Amino acid sequence: MDNKRVVLASRPSGWVTEANFRIETAPVANPKDGEILVKNLWLSLDPYMRGRMNDTKSYAAKQEIGEVMVGGTAGEVIESKNPKFAVGDQVVGMLGWQQYGTTAGVGLNKIDASRAPMSAFLGVLGMPGVTAWVGLLEICQPKAGETVVVSAASGAVGSVVGQIAKLKGCRAVGIAGGKAKCDYVVKELGFDACIDYKAGKLDADLKAAVPNGIDCYFENVGGETLDAALRRMNAFSRIAVCGLISQYNATEPYGVKTFQSILTNRIKVQGFIVSDRMELWAKALPELIGWVASGKIKYRETVAQGIENAPKAFIGLLKGENFGKQLVKLA
Amino acid sequence: MDNKRVVLASRPSGWVTEANFRIETAPVANPKDGEILVKNLWLSLDPYMRGRMNDTKSYAAKQEIGEVMVGGTAGEVIESKNPKFAVGDQVVGMLGWQQYGTTAGVGLNKIDASRAPMSAFLGVLGMPGVTAWVGLLEICQPKAGETVVVSAASGAVGSVVGQIAKLKGCRAVGIAGGKAKCDYVVKELGFDACIDYKAGKLDADLKAAVPNGIDCYFENVGGETLDAALRRMNAFSRIAVCGLISQYNATEPYGVKTFQSILTNRIKVQGFIVSDRMELWAKALPELIGWVASGKIKYRETVAQGIENAPKAFIGLLKGENFGKQLVKLA
Repeated sequence: MDNKRVVLASRPSGWVTEANFRIETAPVANPKDGEILVKNLWLSLDPYMRGRMNDTKSYAAKQEIGEVMVGGTAGEVIESKNPKFAVGDQVVGMLGWQQYGTTAGVGLNKIDASRAPMSAFLGVLGMPGVTAWVGLLEICQPKAGETVVVSAASGAVGSVVGQIAKLKGCRAVGIAGGKAKCDYVVKELGFDACIDYKAGKLDADLKAAVPNGIDCYFENVGGETLDAALRRMNAFSRIAVCGLISQYNATEPYGVKTFQSILTNRIKVQGFIVSDRMELWAKALPELIGWVASGKIKYRETVAQGIENAPKAFIGLLKGENFGKQLVKLA
Repeated sequence: MDNKRVVLASRPSGWVTEANFRIETAPVANPKDGEILVKNLWLSLDPYMRGRMNDTKSYAAKQEIGEVMVGGTAGEVIESKNPKFAVGDQVVGMLGWQQYGTTAGVGLNKIDASRAPMSAFLGVLGMPGVTAWVGLLEICQPKAGETVVVSAASGAVGSVVGQIAKLKGCRAVGIAGGKAKCDYVVKELGFDACIDYKAGKLDADLKAAVPNGIDCYFENVGGETLDAALRRMNAFSRIAVCGLISQYNATEPYGVKTFQSILTNRIKVQGFIVSDRMELWAKALPELIGWVASGKIKYRETVAQGIENAPKAFIGLLKGENFGKQLVKLA
């Protein structure tokens, strides 16, 4: 049985191109004692993967050249030599950009796909959803009546941030690219307002949308968006720095001009990665499942078909071409 | 009796000049019932005053044109119509850039000048010393063996930060301007190392001085110094943003290029002002008095003579011409 997979062919300088990837076919590795074989049905594409492609220390080990690209997957156990897993178990884990994964099961979690479609466990009920929960509720800690702003508001993380903010009684304002995304954020997800940064007057539009300033800013983007938010932050406000996607392909870093707001307004800024807070997963996930099951949190997916289309879909994600959670359907 | 005082004559654009101030003489205001008259013996000059001179919202109300410049003072009660104060009491408070202050006594505190010279209660035992204590021990919370870096290391705040860090078993590294200040920081104050940013190779020198990276950064300066520190921060490190003196006279703000380190290293950044944490004063001050009395914390003062020299001394402070705490001796 063949396993089609995507490996890192070369490191990008600036924007990622399809030439940075190579699609390979290799025989499936048969599971040894203690291992299982998983057929991956869904692959998650996420901005953090861009950082792994660089030859620099990031929060995780870099991706080595020639290795299968790192990535979250959802699939089904098709062979088991590990008593903790049975054939037919549905599992999520980090099996990478490939059709099959052979693994001892470390970091693999069974899911109950009767509560939500399997793909949701890579998005709203997976790493992105828990990231939103941790960054908003643990780091920003908004109070009812406060104003929460989130960038990349229609994305897998941002869309959940704003909806939780509304559930907690906050004013939720999104920043997104394009009218269609902003309409979705306001009309379908229930945000109070959304700024289309592509309209070219981010500062003025954001100012108008936050008449009482910003108490919590959930940052996914960086660059000019960060400066615009810093200009509107209130005294004793909080910023959860979750991502800086505008910078990942930049060859010259953007210079943040309004750092002084952090002093003047006594802002708390906290960079975070959800994998540092695994102990919160057990608290966050049941809440998220409940909100999704009851329709209080909605989500949208952009689905590419087949492993060979993963590189193109990933590049689209970095450019903001996706709408909601970017997935690859593998089978 | 005449009261010589310094008022704000005009708002600076960019660098402060002596023309932004006006020296006036007016009769001393006689205390009414409930008030006291204080003869100010010492005036404290501090970087925060620059922010008050702007026509923009900062953490405190701006200074109005024509009003006496805001400032901390130490002096002696020479007339009292308030039962809480007696003639001869030595007090510190915010009576401004003037020789005499008439006040109801709100925010005025009596000092025990038998423990230390009166001027110390404006520096190491006053707002700067408590600022160092709060920023380092409450915000950065360094553990023994960690590396603490502080900018403006020979200044009123920075010198205390590094000495407390040493008392807590940390590696203390300063950044200061010029060989004389660096020699003082290492040889007299006991820091482990000091980088002279004027030597022109801040990045390389800082890298060499922190072989294990930076766990706590106490920021007084901003600009290139901040970028240099961000490049060396460790995972889960902390930054206390106390001041950004390099930016106070800038007409174009410096663009911070390494903001991404906050995400990658999951740094906590906290802007703070000691006056927000007045409840900590009662805990910090006795510790500081003990350390100063026992010689564990040393300090240095630069003293200008006479109220009419306050503007010039303040401009010197903004340019880093002072060495240690900048004071004006008023009588």
